[in-house]
Amino acid sequence: MTRLKMGMVGGGTGSFIGDVHRKAASIDGMIALVCGAFSSSKEKSSASAKELGIPDNRAYGSFEEMITEESKLPEEERMDFVAIVTPNHMHFPPAKMALEHGFHVICDKPLSLTLDEAIELEKIVQSSGKVFALTHNYTGYPMVKQAKAMIAKGDLGAIRKINAHYLQGWLSTSVEKTGQKQAAWRVDPKRSGIGGALGDIGTHAENLIEYITGIQIETIAADLTAFGDGRSLDDDGNILLRFENGAKGIMSFSQIATGEENNLGVKIYGTKGSLTWNQENPNQLIVKWLDQPKQIYTPGGNGTYSESSEYVRIPAGHPEGYLEGFATIYRSFAKELLTVKSGKSFSNNPDFPTVTDGVRGMKFIYAAVESSKNNASWTRV
Amino acid sequence: MTRLKMGMVGGGTGSFIGDVHRKAASIDGMIALVCGAFSSSKEKSSASAKELGIPDNRAYGSFEEMITEESKLPEEERMDFVAIVTPNHMHFPPAKMALEHGFHVICDKPLSLTLDEAIELEKIVQSSGKVFALTHNYTGYPMVKQAKAMIAKGDLGAIRKINAHYLQGWLSTSVEKTGQKQAAWRVDPKRSGIGGALGDIGTHAENLIEYITGIQIETIAADLTAFGDGRSLDDDGNILLRFENGAKGIMSFSQIATGEENNLGVKIYGTKGSLTWNQENPNQLIVKWLDQPKQIYTPGGNGTYSESSEYVRIPAGHPEGYLEGFATIYRSFAKELLTVKSGKSFSNNPDFPTVTDGVRGMKFIYAAVESSKNNASWTRV
Amino acid sequence: MTRLKMGMVGGGTGSFIGDVHRKAASIDGMIALVCGAFSSSKEKSSASAKELGIPDNRAYGSFEEMITEESKLPEEERMDFVAIVTPNHMHFPPAKMALEHGFHVICDKPLSLTLDEAIELEKIVQSSGKVFALTHNYTGYPMVKQAKAMIAKGDLGAIRKINAHYLQGWLSTSVEKTGQKQAAWRVDPKRSGIGGALGDIGTHAENLIEYITGIQIETIAADLTAFGDGRSLDDDGNILLRFENGAKGIMSFSQIATGEENNLGVKIYGTKGSLTWNQENPNQLIVKWLDQPKQIYTPGGNGTYSESSEYVRIPAGHPEGYLEGFATIYRSFAKELLTVKSGKSFSNNPDFPTVTDGVRGMKFIYAAVESSKNNASWTRV
Amino acid sequence: MTRLKMGMVGGGTGSFIGDVHRKAASIDGMIALVCGAFSSSKEKSSASAKELGIPDNRAYGSFEEMITEESKLPEEERMDFVAIVTPNHMHFPPAKMALEHGFHVICDKPLSLTLDEAIELEKIVQSSGKVFALTHNYTGYPMVKQAKAMIAKGDLGAIRKINAHYLQGWLSTSVEKTGQKQAAWRVDPKRSGIGGALGDIGTHAENLIEYITGIQIETIAADLTAFGDGRSLDDDGNILLRFENGAKGIMSFSQIATGEENNLGVKIYGTKGSLTWNQENPNQLIVKWLDQPKQIYTPGGNGTYSESSEYVRIPAGHPEGYLEGFATIYRSFAKELLTVKSGKSFSNNPDFPTVTDGVRGMKFIYAAVESSKNNASWTRV
Repeated sequence: MTRLKMGMVGGGTGSFIGDVHRKAASIDGMIALVCGAFSSSKEKSSASAKELGIPDNRAYGSFEEMITEESKLPEEERMDFVAIVTPNHMHFPPAKMALEHGFHVICDKPLSLTLDEAIELEKIVQSSGKVFALTHNYTGYPMVKQAKAMIAKGDLGAIRKINAHYLQGWLSTSVEKTGQKQAAWRVDPKRSGIGGALGDIGTHAENLIEYITGIQIETIAADLTAFGDGRSLDDDGNILLRFENGAKGIMSFSQIATGEENNLGVKIYGTKGSLTWNQENPNQLIVKWLDQPKQIYTPGGNGTYSESSEYVRIPAGHPEGYLEGFATIYRSFAKELLTVKSGKSFSNNPDFPTVTDGVRGMKFIYAAVESSKNNASWTRV
Repeated sequence: MTRLKMGMVGGGTGSFIGDVHRKAASIDGMIALVCGAFSSSKEKSSASAKELGIPDNRAYGSFEEMITEESKLPEEERMDFVAIVTPNHMHFPPAKMALEHGFHVICDKPLSLTLDEAIELEKIVQSSGKVFALTHNYTGYPMVKQAKAMIAKGDLGAIRKINAHYLQGWLSTSVEKTGQKQAAWRVDPKRSGIGGALGDIGTHAENLIEYITGIQIETIAADLTAFGDGRSLDDDGNILLRFENGAKGIMSFSQIATGEENNLGVKIYGTKGSLTWNQENPNQLIVKWLDQPKQIYTPGGNGTYSESSEYVRIPAGHPEGYLEGFATIYRSFAKELLTVKSGKSFSNNPDFPTVTDGVRGMKFIYAAVESSKNNASWTRV
Repeated sequence: MTRLKMGMVGGGTGSFIGDVHRKAASIDGMIALVCGAFSSSKEKSSASAKELGIPDNRAYGSFEEMITEESKLPEEERMDFVAIVTPNHMHFPPAKMALEHGFHVICDKPLSLTLDEAIELEKIVQSSGKVFALTHNYTGYPMVKQAKAMIAKGDLGAIRKINAHYLQGWLSTSVEKTGQKQAAWRVDPKRSGIGGALGDIGTHAENLIEYITGIQIETIAADLTAFGDGRSLDDDGNILLRFENGAKGIMSFSQIATGEENNLGVKIYGTKGSLTWNQENPNQLIVKWLDQPKQIYTPGGNGTYSESSEYVRIPAGHPEGYLEGFATIYRSFAKELLTVKSGKSFSNNPDFPTVTDGVRGMKFIYAAVESSKNNASWTRV
Repeated sequence: MTRLKMGMVGGGTGSFIGDVHRKAASIDGMIALVCGAFSSSKEKSSASAKELGIPDNRAYGSFEEMITEESKLPEEERMDFVAIVTPNHMHFPPAKMALEHGFHVICDKPLSLTLDEAIELEKIVQSSGKVFALTHNYTGYPMVKQAKAMIAKGDLGAIRKINAHYLQGWLSTSVEKTGQKQAAWRVDPKRSGIGGALGDIGTHAENLIEYITGIQIETIAADLTAFGDGRSLDDDGNILLRFENGAKGIMSFSQIATGEENNLGVKIYGTKGSLTWNQENPNQLIVKWLDQPKQIYTPGGNGTYSESSEYVRIPAGHPEGYLEGFATIYRSFAKELLTVKSGKSFSNNPDFPTVTDGVRGMKFIYAAVESSKNNASWTRV
């Protein structure tokens, strides 16, 4: 097996998410990093490349240069796909250019800075014949896969209630004023877009509940708040949810939930049973039944469906974590690439979040912001 | 110490909450049940009395008879107070009559069938010179007391986010059609009032968060649903919350949350720290700090305030449960009665839920129903 | 129903376990405290009686006086049974005298100061025609009953491994030198007997695993230690266990396990499944199966056997605690008394720990001490 | 940074631990797999190489061939170190030969088939000037590092009680008779050595407690059992522990603990506090204090020491798992290799398990087997 060759946009030294992408890409041995526009200057990019063991001639000073130069290389040498790990405002430009130059793309979420960009990008992807994946990584956890499979098979009956929360506390104080880069761009509308915590983590919660249930959020009533001193973007939000099938629910997200680390969780209730999953303890799925004892499912453990267990790398009881869930997105993306490279057609239902999921996330952001401006009036997603 | 003498309205054989009240009243040895109008017929009431070891001449066929007849007994023999453990529509009439005949009252929640009744009852209590307690029993748990004390002392800083849930699954199917009495009256507006799950458990959540934080809910946007076939009252609700101090939050309650037993919980976030408490595991309070490790507090355990530990009956590590929390309401009520009987004046801030808390609960029910009728528009509580 | 009349030996003001016994006895409304030799002087006993609402003429200065005087009262007035809640050295004398005067007895554990006393007491009970219960209260928890029923029905298959622990930290420092009464008698061989933590909590663990599994410990290899400065009795112990059916196991108990409150737990493994129960979170029983998902059982919850659910006082999700488990012992004892008083014969298999269980506990203490003296050599229980 | 070049012995298609080693080696981007003797035939080895993207000329039919042939390659091409991931009987031969040919070695545990081999290997390592690491991977978890640091700093005071358990259920039935390869060699003394579960998982528990506490087990009393039909090696064991500093403890391990997955845990008690850690929920460390509230530490979370947080790859709340802990061993080994390659001297106290730890593990196995043969008599480790 030859490894797929990855070029990266962003992810220079000190980057959080760039390093996550690199580790996730490496775990299953299907992908090798070969080049990058790691920073906005050739000098910084080269420094990162050196640390990463990338030859200097493959360290570029801009994504434009990377895409242009790589295109000139022979196929067996040039990158196969671009991984975009920049702040939101820098998702669309490299994605568009890469696709238009014949490269596949995997991109961090949310899809883009604006909804217009998202819609345009969806068209570009569809006409490009290239594979595009969005790293809503939480869908990669085996217990999330198990939850999805149980609902798809009807184990829980008709779904009636869907609650989600995503609570962090790292913006409880004004860390963006202390030079913390991660915070600085997230509170800046020019780089984040119109959503703050909404875009950063609210979209993860939205994606997760639609992924698990297969049911779309139809309308929402959102109450967004910027608690942090001087912030123009929300750092907290509470949303009433109504689903296309008549289910109701609630979402609460925050980055000022003091003391919380990365507390993402869902509770989903059907007529026959319900399930509870929390990201901070991702290796158990609690299922509560109408008339049977509660159950605990574990990755690869008794009673798990193949739709879940095929994503487990190590025996039950050996915890997998965030990086492995993330790696699953990369692995599924890589498998699709190999399929497409071998001349076969695209999956109708690829096992990773797509550009269409990304558009949906952007619509969710826009609907929530509009609803909140109208004092939490019901707004269609 | 002579025991206070309790007369009970409701709570005949097979009653859930009547038995809970009796056990709760007995735990601390301050109260003795001496009479009751346990059922709506003398015959049934006598049968219950016999089981309970109450002489037949103290078993009454109606609350009117009980109050009238007990009033005629010498003071050392007649009941000191009335415990009302009937469905909601039968709270106001016996409470009013008891107070007007000079008896103290402890009453199950919600306070009454209608808001008008509640407001009238508040006036009656205030002019009666009698003690009135409402059994929002969850405020009796030691870890709830600890949470309240920590917030009151400012340990968590300014409160910004308050989330609560109260999830049950026992009405997931149409059990009211199977002859289940508990279900039958709860889905019947004539006996429950205008709130279904809202009145039955939503008010507990409302009371709990206001009790713990000392902050009032100002306006709400409520989305109530009756999922159960043929139900006219809500069995599920999701509510956006705005608090008087600018805090925001969310509440979700349900009686169709399949598989849930009695899952009441709160998460409260301040600028310095946050806390999480869940009723099904009531003997731990998780506190998460801005810059210190998370902590686990236990009843009577290291670091608990006297405001909490004084309510603990047994050493740390020996779990107390629902009945003990309930008993704490009875004990505090009993202490207040002894104070008043000894000629001292009422507590300004008695340590049990009062008629005023009950009025507030009714206002919450009315505001939620109105908001929901207006498609979750913001409504003042 | 007329309440059974209880006389108490020990349990004066400030007593921990005396108060627990009184609360436990009161919860189900079947028992009334009518008299007591609460302390070793009439004066102190009277003071306790006053607090408890007992007439002064029923407050006795010694158990001898209580038993003698109560015997003279008419049957409808005199106590039915004696509850013994004193330190270990004061179990045998009042138990013997009470039985010989025709009173039933309920006694705290361990059964007696010495094994000889225990064996003698067993004979006295057997010839007395009276009911005798020992308050190994942890057997009263509904999830312990469920565990016992599951094993008895063969759900877990043949039992092969049994591990137990009972860890407390309250003797981590030399609290006995600070005037703490609870500590003072527990480290004193004259009042505790030859076992320290072994007798105080090790016997609870021993009783619990034999109760749940129905399998006797055959031989043990015990390593007992007195870590506390100047202590002559063990405050810590580790024991290898071999059971009559070939199962193996381990027990670890300690009162110097710093930071632990009352951490009693068992893990029991059969050929088909296993179970885990912990006292500090007593309302769940985790069952792990050979080839099915793990399950969580809760009191009164889905799938629980009637052998468990009949001991649940309130609906699933409403936690019961230590006092309720203790109360179950009292209730079962009271039911047996009523049976015997009504002229029916004794239960062959009463649902509470008996004097024979108490003898077994004493044999366990003696075997452990002997084994430890012989450097943890295997010793028959 | 140039990647270190790894050659692997064992780990052919379908291998569990070989795949774990490869993933672990890849996560931090410091190591590249360049060759392997993946199976005992050239043909099978080539098949595995193909799947792994290794050129066929670097796929060897035996470790002897691999070491011989790689030695002939130029330094910039040939492997830097050998990873040994075979059953126990195949640890010593390739390790010896690799070291003697100038290659560094990382080897799975236990160190060797026999104690004699272990002692010889220790000498070979010491005289070789090469780096040798043993993959006791559980020491790589950040919360294990935190536990070690807290004890080293004296936070818990003097250690007095150390309990460990390692419970699995996968050998509850006779899976070795079903063609399960993992089971087959583990129950075979020729390939496993004299310890069964003892060597496979008991040594992990032994290593973990000595690693965390820095205190050696001095003597043990072991009761080993082979429950499985026809097994000659233990599949279950219970051990009394006495430590060099006077601490006491207990260890229980099993592979017939039905329903358990990979339940490794420790409880360690000092005079000032204690800690509890469990591998199946590895991202929390519970610390219980003498006089402060209990605490929960999380990787990279508030209050963690740099000795722990430096091993965390992603922000607090993003769970890391088994592979990351394993990767930490590889990363530390790689760092040491780079140091040594750069001409600097060896670390005195390298941050990975060494050959000396491996000898200790073998001594533990031998002491336990001897003790058990002598009916659990005390035996020096």
